Amino acid sequence: MVIMVVLFGVFVRYNPEADAHWNEEKKKHNISSDVENDFYYRYPSFQDVHVMIFVGFGFLMTFLQRYGFGSVGFNFLLAAFGIQWALLMQGWFHSFHDGYILIGVENLINADFCVGSVCVAFGAILGKVSPIQLLIMTLFQVTLFSVNEYILLSLLQVKDAGGSMTIHTFGAYFGLTVTWILYRPNLEQSKERQSSVYHSDLFAMIGTLFLWMYWPSFNSAVSNHGDAQHRAAINTYCSLAACVLTSVALSSALQRKGKLDMVHIQNATLAGGVAVGTAAEMMLMPYGSLIVGFICGIISTVGFVYLTPFLESRLRIQDTCGINNLHGMPGIIGGIVGAVTANEASIFVYGQEGLIKAFDFEGSKSNWTPRKQGQYQAAGIFVSLVMAFVGGAIVGVILKFPLWGQAADENCFEDEVYWEVPEVEKNNSYHHEDTTLKPVAS
Amino acid sequence: MVIMVVLFGVFVRYNPEADAHWNEEKKKHNISSDVENDFYYRYPSFQDVHVMIFVGFGFLMTFLQRYGFGSVGFNFLLAAFGIQWALLMQGWFHSFHDGYILIGVENLINADFCVGSVCVAFGAILGKVSPIQLLIMTLFQVTLFSVNEYILLSLLQVKDAGGSMTIHTFGAYFGLTVTWILYRPNLEQSKERQSSVYHSDLFAMIGTLFLWMYWPSFNSAVSNHGDAQHRAAINTYCSLAACVLTSVALSSALQRKGKLDMVHIQNATLAGGVAVGTAAEMMLMPYGSLIVGFICGIISTVGFVYLTPFLESRLRIQDTCGINNLHGMPGIIGGIVGAVTANEASIFVYGQEGLIKAFDFEGSKSNWTPRKQGQYQAAGIFVSLVMAFVGGAIVGVILKFPLWGQAADENCFEDEVYWEVPEVEKNNSYHHEDTTLKPVAS
Amino acid sequence: MVIMVVLFGVFVRYNPEADAHWNEEKKKHNISSDVENDFYYRYPSFQDVHVMIFVGFGFLMTFLQRYGFGSVGFNFLLAAFGIQWALLMQGWFHSFHDGYILIGVENLINADFCVGSVCVAFGAILGKVSPIQLLIMTLFQVTLFSVNEYILLSLLQVKDAGGSMTIHTFGAYFGLTVTWILYRPNLEQSKERQSSVYHSDLFAMIGTLFLWMYWPSFNSAVSNHGDAQHRAAINTYCSLAACVLTSVALSSALQRKGKLDMVHIQNATLAGGVAVGTAAEMMLMPYGSLIVGFICGIISTVGFVYLTPFLESRLRIQDTCGINNLHGMPGIIGGIVGAVTANEASIFVYGQEGLIKAFDFEGSKSNWTPRKQGQYQAAGIFVSLVMAFVGGAIVGVILKFPLWGQAADENCFEDEVYWEVPEVEKNNSYHHEDTTLKPVAS
Repeated sequence: MVIMVVLFGVFVRYNPEADAHWNEEKKKHNISSDVENDFYYRYPSFQDVHVMIFVGFGFLMTFLQRYGFGSVGFNFLLAAFGIQWALLMQGWFHSFHDGYILIGVENLINADFCVGSVCVAFGAILGKVSPIQLLIMTLFQVTLFSVNEYILLSLLQVKDAGGSMTIHTFGAYFGLTVTWILYRPNLEQSKERQSSVYHSDLFAMIGTLFLWMYWPSFNSAVSNHGDAQHRAAINTYCSLAACVLTSVALSSALQRKGKLDMVHIQNATLAGGVAVGTAAEMMLMPYGSLIVGFICGIISTVGFVYLTPFLESRLRIQDTCGINNLHGMPGIIGGIVGAVTANEASIFVYGQEGLIKAFDFEGSKSNWTPRKQGQYQAAGIFVSLVMAFVGGAIVGVILKFPLWGQAADENCFEDEVYWEVPEVEKNNSYHHEDTTLKPVAS
Repeated sequence: MVIMVVLFGVFVRYNPEADAHWNEEKKKHNISSDVENDFYYRYPSFQDVHVMIFVGFGFLMTFLQRYGFGSVGFNFLLAAFGIQWALLMQGWFHSFHDGYILIGVENLINADFCVGSVCVAFGAILGKVSPIQLLIMTLFQVTLFSVNEYILLSLLQVKDAGGSMTIHTFGAYFGLTVTWILYRPNLEQSKERQSSVYHSDLFAMIGTLFLWMYWPSFNSAVSNHGDAQHRAAINTYCSLAACVLTSVALSSALQRKGKLDMVHIQNATLAGGVAVGTAAEMMLMPYGSLIVGFICGIISTVGFVYLTPFLESRLRIQDTCGINNLHGMPGIIGGIVGAVTANEASIFVYGQEGLIKAFDFEGSKSNWTPRKQGQYQAAGIFVSLVMAFVGGAIVGVILKFPLWGQAADENCFEDEVYWEVPEVEKNNSYHHEDTTLKPVAS
Repeated sequence: MVIMVVLFGVFVRYNPEADAHWNEEKKKHNISSDVENDFYYRYPSFQDVHVMIFVGFGFLMTFLQRYGFGSVGFNFLLAAFGIQWALLMQGWFHSFHDGYILIGVENLINADFCVGSVCVAFGAILGKVSPIQLLIMTLFQVTLFSVNEYILLSLLQVKDAGGSMTIHTFGAYFGLTVTWILYRPNLEQSKERQSSVYHSDLFAMIGTLFLWMYWPSFNSAVSNHGDAQHRAAINTYCSLAACVLTSVALSSALQRKGKLDMVHIQNATLAGGVAVGTAAEMMLMPYGSLIVGFICGIISTVGFVYLTPFLESRLRIQDTCGINNLHGMPGIIGGIVGAVTANEASIFVYGQEGLIKAFDFEGSKSNWTPRKQGQYQAAGIFVSLVMAFVGGAIVGVILKFPLWGQAADENCFEDEVYWEVPEVEKNNSYHHEDTTLKPVAS
C-alpha cells in the first residue's frame, strides 16, 4: 500500500478543472462561469454510479443466507482497492500529460466503471474465494480491463459509453473463465447455503433497485455534454422498464404454478440496462430501447432457468450469481446493438454536426463513415471476448495456487470462515431459521 | 407488450434537447452552453424522484411480516409498466407536436409522478389483490390520472408542481374507492399476517427515509428553473421537519404508556411533504411551511389512531397502509393551502415579473388575478375528488370479476401465494418467529 | 413548537436566489442564466448530505440487536428537530440581513452539518438515554455548535468546509463528555443486547455505505464554486478508498485467526472522510489524501480494538458506537492536516488568484499569509475541544436530573422501553434468535 502512495505521489495531480489555477484557466479558455466546470456536468451521475458499485453490487449479492457479510464487505474491499489502481492504470492510458496523470471527476467515474467489471466477475465466484484471492484478481482484472479499454476506445476508436463491451462482456466472461478454472467438484456439500432466506432476498432487492434506478446515470455518465447525456438517460430508462415486464412475465410462465422467482426479479430485470450500454447515447430511439429491453428480459430469464444449471452440470462452470444471464449475454447483445445502431447512423437522423459530434468524425476519424464505425464496434466485441477468455484463464491459474487461504468445499458460502459472526448465531452452520425449524417439525 | 413497442415506434421521439440536432437547435435559439440543457436542471431531481417511487414506496410497504416480496416486487412491476403507459398518455396530452410525442427528462419525471399515484392507491389494496389485478388497475389509473391532470393543468390552468391534488388526492381516493368495492368480509382470517415483525419494520424505515429525504426534490422537480425550484425545496424541507415533531409527539401522547408506534413514524412523518405539494413553489414562506407540517403531523397521526379503524369497521374501507392519513387528507389540505396561497399572492410579495412568472399570468392568462387563480385551484380539488371516486368505482367493479387470480381471504398478505418462498420458510403460514416461539413457550 | 413557528415567522425569509424577485435580482447583478442560481451548484450535494444524516447515521447505529427502532427513529426525531433550530441559530450568526435570516440551499446544508455533529454525539450515548434527553441535548448542542462555528469561521477566519473541527471534533468530544457524566456503573446487566445479530449488522452496512459513498459530497458541499468543490470531492474519494484497505488489513491482523470484524468495517472505513474534512478543498494532492486515509484507517481500527475497552474500564467513558475512533481522533487529525496544508500553501501551488480565492486573502484578510492561516487553523482545534468539554459537561449535568424518563441500567439498548414492539417478539428480552436457540441446544 506504500507503493500506491508512492505511485500517486509521483504521477497523480489534479486536472485543470480541479486545480487551484482554475481561475486563470477560465480566462485562458474564455470560460464565463464556474458552472461550466465539468464537475457540475458529471458529479450527480458520478454519485449515482458510486452507489451502484458499492450498494448496488454489494447488496445484490446478499441474497445468500450466510454470506451477507462477505457479499457486502468483500465487494467494499475489492472496489476500494480497485478504484485506486484503476485511477493509475486508466490514467496512464488516457489522462497522461507531461509526466502526470491529471484527474478530475470523469476519472473517478471511469475508475468506478473499471471496478464495476470486477464486481461483475466477483458474482461468478461469490462465496468460493478468499479475500486474498479477490484482491489478486482485482489487481489483474483492473490491469487487463485498462488494456482492453485502451484497445477499444483509443485504437479501434469504438464508442462504448455505458460499457456493454468493456465492462459487462469483458467482466462476465473473465469471471466465468476464472470460475471454470476454479471448479469445485464437491460444491454440493454447501448446497444448503447456496439458497436464500426471506430477509436475505429483501436485502438483495435493495441492491437490485439501486442498480435499476441509477442505471440511466451509469450509461450517461461519460457521454458528451448536452443531448448525448440526455438521450442516454432516456434510452436506458425505457429499456429497463420494458425489461421488467418480460422478466416478470417469463418468470411466471416458466415456473410451476405460475409463481414468481425472486432470483429473476433481482437479476433479469437489470439486463435491459446492460444491453443499451453501448447504444444508449446514440439515436437508438425510445422504441428501439423498448425492443432491446424486451428481448433481454426474455433471454436473461430463460438463461437463469435453463442455461445456468446446464453450464454447471455440463461445462463445470459454477456461476453463483448467474452473471452470464445478467452481464454476459446482454453485454454481447449490447455490443451488437451498438454496432448496428452505429452502422445505421445517417445525417438525416443525426444532422450534419450531430453525426460528427456523436461519433467524433473529425481529426483522424474525419474520413470515417457510419458503416466503418459499425464494423469497428463489432470488432470491439471480439477483442473484449478474447481478452476476457485469455485473461481469465491466466488469472484463474494464478488463483488456483493453494496459497491464498481458500475455504474447503464444505465451507463455501459461509461467513464464519472469514468473519467474526455474532455469538448467538455461531453454532449454526446454516441459517438460524433452518435449525430452529427442525426441532419444531420433529 | 408488442402494442407498447408499436405505439412508441409510431409516436415517441426525442425532444430537441435530447436529439442529436441539439447543436443546431442551440444556434437557432442562441443558447450559449450545453449546461443550459434541461437535463442539467432536472436530472438530479429526477433521480431522487425515481428512488422515491421504487425504493421509497416499495420498501415503505414491506412492513408486513409475510408480504415483503409482494410489496417490493409488485410495486416494481406496476411502476415499470406504468411509466411506459404514462409516457404515452401524458405525452399525447402535453408533449404532442406534429404527430410525435417529444420526450425529455421532464417527461420521465412526470411519468414517475403519474406512477406515484398508482403506488399510493396500491397502498390501500396491498396484500389483497393479484398481480394481474394490479396491472389492470395501473392501466386504467394512469389513463384517468392523465385525463385529470389535463383538466387541471391545461383546462383549469391550475398550478400543482408537487401534485397534492393530481397525485395524492386523486391517488388516495381512487385507491380507497377501489378497496371499498373489493371489500373482503372475512379478512380477519389473515389478521396475524397484517402486523409487522421487528426486521420488517426496519425495512419499511428504508422506504420512509428515502421518501422523506427526497421529497424536496419531488416537489421541486418540475417547477420553473431558478428561484421556484429553489424555494420549493426549502418549503418542503421545513414542512417535513415540522411534521416529524408533531407525529412523534402525538404518537407518544395517544398510545398507552407513552410508547411510540412505528406505523406513525413510518407514515405520518411524511404527511408534511404531501401537504405542501401545491404551494411549495409559491411564496408560502418558511413559517407557512412549518405550520402546514405541524398541522399535518397531527391530522395524520390522529387519523391512524382513530380514523382507519373507524373506516374499516363502519364504512367497510380496508386501507392496508392507511393511505387516507398519509395521502388523502394531507392531499386535500395541500390543495387548500395552494388555493389560499395563490389567492393571497400579490405584486408586493412576488414582484411584478415574479408574479407573472410564478402563475403564468401571460398569454391567455394575462388578465387573471391571484384571486381567480385561487378559485381555479380550489376547483381543481373537487375535480380530482370526483375523478377519483368515479374512476375508482369503475375500476373497482372491473377488478371484482373473479377472473384475475385473486387470493382467498385467508391467504391475503401472504407471499407464498404468488412467489417462490425459500424452502426453509415454506411451511410457516405465519412468520417463522411466531411458530418457533410457540413450542418454546409450551 | 409554537415557538418555532413564531421565530420562523419573525425572522426567516428566502434569500434572493430563492425569492420570487430573483428575475429582478438577476438583472441587477447581470446574471445571464437561471443555472447560475446557487441551487444548481449545491442541491445535488445537499441531497447526498441529507441521506448521510438520516439514512447514514440512522442505519449505522442499527447494529444493536434490539435497538433498531431507537437508532433510526430517535436519529430521525433529533435530526428533524435539530435542523429547524440550526436554521435559526446559524442564521442569526451568518445570514442575518436587515432583521431577517435569509435562507437558501447553503443554509439547508449547514443545518444538516450542524445536526450531523449531534448525530455523532448520539453515537456515544446510544441506547442509554430517553428521547426527552435527546431533544434537550439537541437543543443545547445545536446552540453551542453554532457559537463554536461562529468563533472558528467568523472570528478566527478558519477554513473548515468538511467540518473536521466544527462537526467531528466538537461533536465527538461533546458526546464523550456527556456519556462520561452519565456513566452507568451497572451497564453490564444489558451487555447481551450490546452486541449485534446477523441481520442487524447488514442493516448497519446500509448506513456505512451511504456515509462512505456520499462523503465526497459532504466535504465539498459548501466549498467555493468550481475547482474547490471539484478538488474536495477527489481528495475525499482518495482518502476513503485508502482508509478501507488499512482498516480491513488491520482488522484481520489484530483479530485471532485473522477473521474480520464487522464493527471495524462499519466504522473505521469512514475515518478517512472525517480526516480530510478541513483540507479536502485545499491542494492536499491525491497522494496526500491517500496518506491521510491510510493513517486514519490504522488509528481508528486500533482505537476500536484497544482504546474503547480501555476508556470504558479505566476512564468510565461508555462509548456505544466508538465515536472516539471514528470522529474524535480522526477529527483532530483532520484539523491538524488542515493547519499543515494551509501553512504550506504557496503561490507556486495555488497560483496568485487561486491562493487568494482558496483562503479569502482579501478584504480584512488581505495581509494574511499561509503561515498565519495555519496558526489560526491550529487554534480552531483547541477552541473546538474546549467548547466540547465545557459544553458537554454542562449538558451532561442537565441530562443527569432524574426527570427525563431514563431507562434503568438493565433496560438499556432495548426498544421495548420506548416503542410498541410487534407482539410475537414481545416476550423476548433478547433477540429471538437467542431464545429460540436455547431450547434447541438443551
